[in-house]
Amino acid sequence: MKHFLIAISILVALSSFNSFKTIKIAKPPVDKADSIHIKQLFNTALNNGKSYQWLDHLSNNIGGRLSGSPEAQQAVEWGEKLMNDLSFDKVWLQPVMVPHWVRGEKEEAYFTDNKIKYHVAICALGGSIATPENGISGEVVEVKSLEEAEALGEKLRGKIVFFNRPFDDTLIETFKAYGGCVDQRGAGAQVTGKFGVLGAIVRSMTGSIDDFPHTGAMHYGDIPENEKVPTAAISTIAANLLSEKLKENPTLKFYFKQSCKTLPNAPSFNVIGEITGSEFPDEYITVGGHLDSWDLGDGAHDDGAGIVQSIEVLRLFQLNGIKPKHTIRAVLFMNEENGLRGGKKYAEEAKNNNEIHIAALESDSGGFTPRGFSIDANGKNMELIKSWKSLLAPYGLHDINEGHTGSDIGPLKSETISLFGYRPDSQRYFEYHHAANDTFDKVNKRELELGAASMASLVYLLDNYLK
Amino acid sequence: MKHFLIAISILVALSSFNSFKTIKIAKPPVDKADSIHIKQLFNTALNNGKSYQWLDHLSNNIGGRLSGSPEAQQAVEWGEKLMNDLSFDKVWLQPVMVPHWVRGEKEEAYFTDNKIKYHVAICALGGSIATPENGISGEVVEVKSLEEAEALGEKLRGKIVFFNRPFDDTLIETFKAYGGCVDQRGAGAQVTGKFGVLGAIVRSMTGSIDDFPHTGAMHYGDIPENEKVPTAAISTIAANLLSEKLKENPTLKFYFKQSCKTLPNAPSFNVIGEITGSEFPDEYITVGGHLDSWDLGDGAHDDGAGIVQSIEVLRLFQLNGIKPKHTIRAVLFMNEENGLRGGKKYAEEAKNNNEIHIAALESDSGGFTPRGFSIDANGKNMELIKSWKSLLAPYGLHDINEGHTGSDIGPLKSETISLFGYRPDSQRYFEYHHAANDTFDKVNKRELELGAASMASLVYLLDNYLK
Repeated sequence: MKHFLIAISILVALSSFNSFKTIKIAKPPVDKADSIHIKQLFNTALNNGKSYQWLDHLSNNIGGRLSGSPEAQQAVEWGEKLMNDLSFDKVWLQPVMVPHWVRGEKEEAYFTDNKIKYHVAICALGGSIATPENGISGEVVEVKSLEEAEALGEKLRGKIVFFNRPFDDTLIETFKAYGGCVDQRGAGAQVTGKFGVLGAIVRSMTGSIDDFPHTGAMHYGDIPENEKVPTAAISTIAANLLSEKLKENPTLKFYFKQSCKTLPNAPSFNVIGEITGSEFPDEYITVGGHLDSWDLGDGAHDDGAGIVQSIEVLRLFQLNGIKPKHTIRAVLFMNEENGLRGGKKYAEEAKNNNEIHIAALESDSGGFTPRGFSIDANGKNMELIKSWKSLLAPYGLHDINEGHTGSDIGPLKSETISLFGYRPDSQRYFEYHHAANDTFDKVNKRELELGAASMASLVYLLDNYLK
Repeated sequence: MKHFLIAISILVALSSFNSFKTIKIAKPPVDKADSIHIKQLFNTALNNGKSYQWLDHLSNNIGGRLSGSPEAQQAVEWGEKLMNDLSFDKVWLQPVMVPHWVRGEKEEAYFTDNKIKYHVAICALGGSIATPENGISGEVVEVKSLEEAEALGEKLRGKIVFFNRPFDDTLIETFKAYGGCVDQRGAGAQVTGKFGVLGAIVRSMTGSIDDFPHTGAMHYGDIPENEKVPTAAISTIAANLLSEKLKENPTLKFYFKQSCKTLPNAPSFNVIGEITGSEFPDEYITVGGHLDSWDLGDGAHDDGAGIVQSIEVLRLFQLNGIKPKHTIRAVLFMNEENGLRGGKKYAEEAKNNNEIHIAALESDSGGFTPRGFSIDANGKNMELIKSWKSLLAPYGLHDINEGHTGSDIGPLKSETISLFGYRPDSQRYFEYHHAANDTFDKVNKRELELGAASMASLVYLLDNYLK
């Protein structure tokens, strides 16, 4: 009995000890050469990077590039030429038809309270119809949610509905605050049109209290034509002021005018460049961002940053003499902002051509300092990727978690592909997102370059270890 | 023998098992209430923070506040009034004599090459003597290190020595790049004076290529008066241009003029506010930054941010009804930039009064997005602090490592105290450091507030768990 107990004790103790050992051994399928290669990718990006210079051109020489605009076409030609100049193995344009919405003349808005006229910073939402030529004027009903508007129902008739639920500033990750509000912008007009509102205005999608209106896509869904009403975003300063004045004077009148319209679909392109794989040329890793942007700023953070970083990933491979095993593609997707036609087309063509896509990475969260990657992958690959944490941590890449990856690469989703989103620090992103202040001067050179190197490092690891 | 081996095996196995167990058990001496308290500190800072508003006043209404200046005195009075208005338990001024260096008239510099005159962005280094009234002019010898200058020796006589070793941009942590260059600024004049140079100029301490000269402290050490020469920093754009032109024309002449001088030491103050501890009123946790700044900008990042964050830590305790067990002090140190007299005085008085200081935390790395804390503590406390990682990680505080903590709290160092430096993201810091563009508009509200909450969270944990 005594020996039996001793034997049992040994077994228990050893099994605990072994499971501890196993965990340690199971960790990194990586070696020291990997950390050296990653360091070289960072060194090259920081000492000899081109992403900032490219972004300067895209932002300042081309500027805002909404789908269907002349600037979007210029951006297509710029991207194609750049990747040809870089001597990628193959560069081509992938045709895609895109929605073509135009803003028209600068919008105008004001409200009048006690004979004082308050001018309001406003912009039409992408996809909205125009107001009548002389604008619309009406009393305002403020609500905090789609549900509240639905509940008011007929009480909204003949009024302008004002969606004013603010960002929850206590959320550390600002994309969560955005996610908690953006339904008001996307569906505010759609759900209230049936109640005969004159129009729908929405508080800008930002936690910052400033005077920039932030545009963005809205959708009428399949509501009848006669229920479609014009919709626009007002700045957070204007939203706060309007809300305050409404408390004192619930019958004050709000006026706005916009002349935006939707033209017939227009021809455009995804721009694709690739370095052909040395071992598995028919297996693809895609790295991309979206080439279109909203029209108010120059789209430097959203998503010029992702575009130049994606091209830079391939260039960093070239500069460091890394011959990828799989084919690595930089894809400049068209029309993420108001249609996702580019992302859908790319996935459709991949399927038509029976391409094997093992991984895709999108950068569409701004050119800020690195924090990590979001992942959408099966359990086995998720474990593999998490085992790289110690290689990525020295570069500030600690947040390696499951989550939404990227809109443009979403249509590629399958049971075998691993999807990734580059996740930089989110604190400043929604100050600029979809607004006139999303401009090149808001992008920091080092932060942008560190992002490109982070992406290149992940692609390097995927190319070497992903099965 | 067999039984002996079994016994040994058991001992080995159990000891492995136990050390493993011990590590696990030793992990968090924290419970769920801690994570809730920390979340509340962040919520309050983000929804109801005051640090940004205070920094606006300090930066824009008072501005740059070099030791001995009227602005430094205004800042002292502002800090005292603010902490009294916040009803801290005790607020007082701690007298300290500080160096009093003044810049004088705006500096001037140019060089002439092929009859073309290139104007150069320049600023005197803090502590430097003036040039003669009409300036100095001479040929330039470019060097990359103090050692290179020493080796040149007499070849420097009658010349202007130009220290031009740039930041190593491949270092992810920019403070390391700064640390690798700053000896040129601090000691360039000191080591070359004995060779009869006319003056010493230095490339600005930044990795950014721009036209801001960055000032900062220099030291003559104990060299004789007649060996002291004027010294100044030139912008990185100017440094690159000068270096390029010197290659073509090694005898080009450089001119600069400055009228700075050192006045007699001036009276000033550390400003101290405290919340008295409920259980250990005679044991102190200090949280601070430095109230003085260089004169070129308004000192928003360096170190207005640290000042307002330190005061906010105590206010966040108040707002959340947290009664600290130990006495928590916010200390606004005077004269970090060019003398450290405030930090030394505070430690001296602490010793004179037999105060027991268990921990001190300094924020002097800018008001950027949180990354972590550097620590200087004994092994036991280091383990304890690292066991809090899981509580801090949700706020982006992953970098919990040994390292330099803070200049002002350094003199408090003992075998028992634990010292901490708040470490925000460093990528943008040296673009502004000691230059005219260190201004309030470069500080992001959320990033500043997250820093204050990070600091409050650490102080909360220290107050509850540090022995």
